[in-house]
Amino acid sequence: MFVPLAVSFIYKESFIHISAFLIPIAALTIIGFLLQIPKPKRNSLYQKEGFALTAMVWLVMTMFGAIPFVINGDIPNYVDACFEIMSGFTTTGSSVITDITAVSRSSLFWRSFSHWIGGMGILVFVLIFIPESNDGSSMHLLRAESPGPQVGKIVSKMKVTTRILYLIYLGMTVIEVIILMLDKPIPGYENDQFFFSLLATFACAGTGGFGFIPNSIEMFHPFSQYVMSIFLILFGCNFSLYYLLLIGKIKEVFRSEEIRIYFLIIVAAVAFVFLSLVGKFEAFPQIYTTEEAFRHSLFQVSSLITTTGFTTTDYSVWPMLAKTTLIMVMFIGAMAGSTAGGIKISRIIIAIKGAYINVRKLISPRYVPKTKFEGKTLEQKTINDVFAFLTLYFFILLAAIFLLSFDPVNGQAVNIVSDAGSYEVKHGFFSNFSAVLACISNVGPAFEAVGPYSSFANYSDFSKIILTFVMLLGRLEILPVLILFNKRTWKKV
Amino acid sequence: MFVPLAVSFIYKESFIHISAFLIPIAALTIIGFLLQIPKPKRNSLYQKEGFALTAMVWLVMTMFGAIPFVINGDIPNYVDACFEIMSGFTTTGSSVITDITAVSRSSLFWRSFSHWIGGMGILVFVLIFIPESNDGSSMHLLRAESPGPQVGKIVSKMKVTTRILYLIYLGMTVIEVIILMLDKPIPGYENDQFFFSLLATFACAGTGGFGFIPNSIEMFHPFSQYVMSIFLILFGCNFSLYYLLLIGKIKEVFRSEEIRIYFLIIVAAVAFVFLSLVGKFEAFPQIYTTEEAFRHSLFQVSSLITTTGFTTTDYSVWPMLAKTTLIMVMFIGAMAGSTAGGIKISRIIIAIKGAYINVRKLISPRYVPKTKFEGKTLEQKTINDVFAFLTLYFFILLAAIFLLSFDPVNGQAVNIVSDAGSYEVKHGFFSNFSAVLACISNVGPAFEAVGPYSSFANYSDFSKIILTFVMLLGRLEILPVLILFNKRTWKKV
Repeated sequence: MFVPLAVSFIYKESFIHISAFLIPIAALTIIGFLLQIPKPKRNSLYQKEGFALTAMVWLVMTMFGAIPFVINGDIPNYVDACFEIMSGFTTTGSSVITDITAVSRSSLFWRSFSHWIGGMGILVFVLIFIPESNDGSSMHLLRAESPGPQVGKIVSKMKVTTRILYLIYLGMTVIEVIILMLDKPIPGYENDQFFFSLLATFACAGTGGFGFIPNSIEMFHPFSQYVMSIFLILFGCNFSLYYLLLIGKIKEVFRSEEIRIYFLIIVAAVAFVFLSLVGKFEAFPQIYTTEEAFRHSLFQVSSLITTTGFTTTDYSVWPMLAKTTLIMVMFIGAMAGSTAGGIKISRIIIAIKGAYINVRKLISPRYVPKTKFEGKTLEQKTINDVFAFLTLYFFILLAAIFLLSFDPVNGQAVNIVSDAGSYEVKHGFFSNFSAVLACISNVGPAFEAVGPYSSFANYSDFSKIILTFVMLLGRLEILPVLILFNKRTWKKV
Repeated sequence: MFVPLAVSFIYKESFIHISAFLIPIAALTIIGFLLQIPKPKRNSLYQKEGFALTAMVWLVMTMFGAIPFVINGDIPNYVDACFEIMSGFTTTGSSVITDITAVSRSSLFWRSFSHWIGGMGILVFVLIFIPESNDGSSMHLLRAESPGPQVGKIVSKMKVTTRILYLIYLGMTVIEVIILMLDKPIPGYENDQFFFSLLATFACAGTGGFGFIPNSIEMFHPFSQYVMSIFLILFGCNFSLYYLLLIGKIKEVFRSEEIRIYFLIIVAAVAFVFLSLVGKFEAFPQIYTTEEAFRHSLFQVSSLITTTGFTTTDYSVWPMLAKTTLIMVMFIGAMAGSTAGGIKISRIIIAIKGAYINVRKLISPRYVPKTKFEGKTLEQKTINDVFAFLTLYFFILLAAIFLLSFDPVNGQAVNIVSDAGSYEVKHGFFSNFSAVLACISNVGPAFEAVGPYSSFANYSDFSKIILTFVMLLGRLEILPVLILFNKRTWKKV
């Protein structure tokens, strides 16, 4: 919080804005010192403790991270503020703010900065600075916080691994900011180019997607939109592959099945959306030029497959094929080991290979599978874990849709004003379905009444708490959160 | 087909209607005789052959079962006719017929009768009449065709088991027809009470749901609607439990976890729908009296949890909580070993217990699970199979939704005339989502543009083929159908 505090000073904000960060900093400092008094009997962590700790740290971060918005009045309701900062840390990017122009600079910065921290992982960041023990404690934290079915070290020392990953992350962030600075400034915001380039990059890097000017990325010039599309795709790649690139093992990168499928899905999805926007399937009014249709297709697919949620146009009026393609990539997500959310491509591959193995076993009961993934034989345990994850993923999705159906907002009409004109939509089943999907996959904007030109503000506090929780389940990939609810987690060992 | 042929004679239908059944009967007889000429070298079936045979028999049944509709002109398009009869055999009940009053008696009978045969299983029916071998061949067929994660015999001989199950089925069918005959006839259809009671009972017994007069069950008197609700719930129970009842083991029936959860879900769902219809959640106009609200709640929950799809009112205008509750029960389905489709309650229970075991293993890595289901220790293999099934179930759901998004019907407006008035709906995402759900769970009617007062007729042939296939995947529970696509299935062993 020292960083947004500094921003508050730089922009000479009022005392209330400065204290919005000073108060939680002071509170956290005092609590931190108090917690250091009882000396722990044991310095290592069991797996369950690593998982539970991660989930708890994320909850505590959210509870404190929400405080500045309430103090400076940018989001007066505490439940709303928790929703917003959880949406930040989990790199979801769903917002409850209806007028972004009324929000202070320091709040805008804090929101977007939370994407950058949350993307790579909060605890992983902390691990860089604390001494490493040899008992696997840090491995448990990394496993709980890192996305994907398998988490490994790229070099033998965990601390070195995380340091390399964070340096790659930082390097790519700096490069994107510099490239975005090369574009012409946005008319009317000539003095803000650096601030905006920084916030946009935080959101791309963490695949978060909070907007900071009206209408997300719509006002940015095509050059910036193309640059962001490319960086989004890059931030959706497994970071270990960049390490392989850096040490010159280029061949190994292209041997990765996951990256090939990742690019294949992107190319196919862009093609489907583009063909659909130029009216090749369903009748669709020609509101875009061919270049615009291509740019929006590329941008929206990049933004939604990486579960970022930035938008350049109102995709909720698009034809069904385009919308359904976007829904599919929201489910799929990008690569494991990236900052993106969603199911992750490696899980999809493992599940399909696992299904194939099941069919083969039915054909020849004595069949011993030797199916490989990324060069290694796929173990039955990995496949079963993926099946279990996916089952829980869909169960949570359905359960949350059911809980949202209690909200009195259902059936109400919402007026949307976007680049596609002004129109009215009803808050229907598709709104709730896509809202939960946008939260569990950490995407951000959804469809219909909670589409890119709307917000989650109309949901009741109860629904917002559900969705906040769903974001955390999505970001920590379910099990670390579920572990908190088992009474045995809280027993002494 | 001799039975609908007899119906055609009884109602003194024209020569074209009689030959509609005579021609396929003749063709099947000739093919049957020809297929008896090459003597098989082996009389037993391997598991893969049992599974592949089941899937193929269902496809062949559909291809021949569709012929009468094309010959007598009730459904002139062959793809439509295949959709209709597959919808019948799989007890889905989705229809492409837009004017049911124009359909001949023999076609109406054939459609509804296909529910009754398909509900218990076509091959299971055949097994009663052919001599049983001791090599497990018939067990493979039963396993492929019977719904649920675990299939067992209730008595040692397979043939006796299927005979008992079919006798229970027949007995309950006769009882329902008799009780429905006690009601006053439907005004305007005074002479058809027996015919209609029979068709309604076929649909309830097989949990199919084809309508035979306009507006499904809306015109039936409340007494008949209550009777059907109760019989629907009864046909959604595992048939082995009736056997236990018959031999006096009443305690064991009530010890079943699945039946307890089944009734719990029904009570909860009826309560949610009822409270929602009397305006306790979302604002909803008082279009029903309290009795009507209760009756419709009970009927729709019974009809959709058993994946039948009969309707007494236009539920697609209901409040969100009511609609979402119905969507949830369409996913869940009824008990394994019943004629219902859907995921089945036993799978839901096993998946949740499996998830709990996974969390426990994370807490204590050396934990050996002893979790029980229906009195037996739950094996890890059973849990893994359920997780695999659910993953495939959701993957197929999403893939089919994606394929339907290519249909030019998307975005078009459909005019609906129902007891809720005349209104227009757009064919949107919710239409496709619910259409696929209605087909994979073998429910029948869906929501929005394919709701209870609409039909699947507007979909393109491509979409209808997809949905036909999805029904079969749902009915045979995926693996027996997937096995057809593996080249090793076709190799000699």
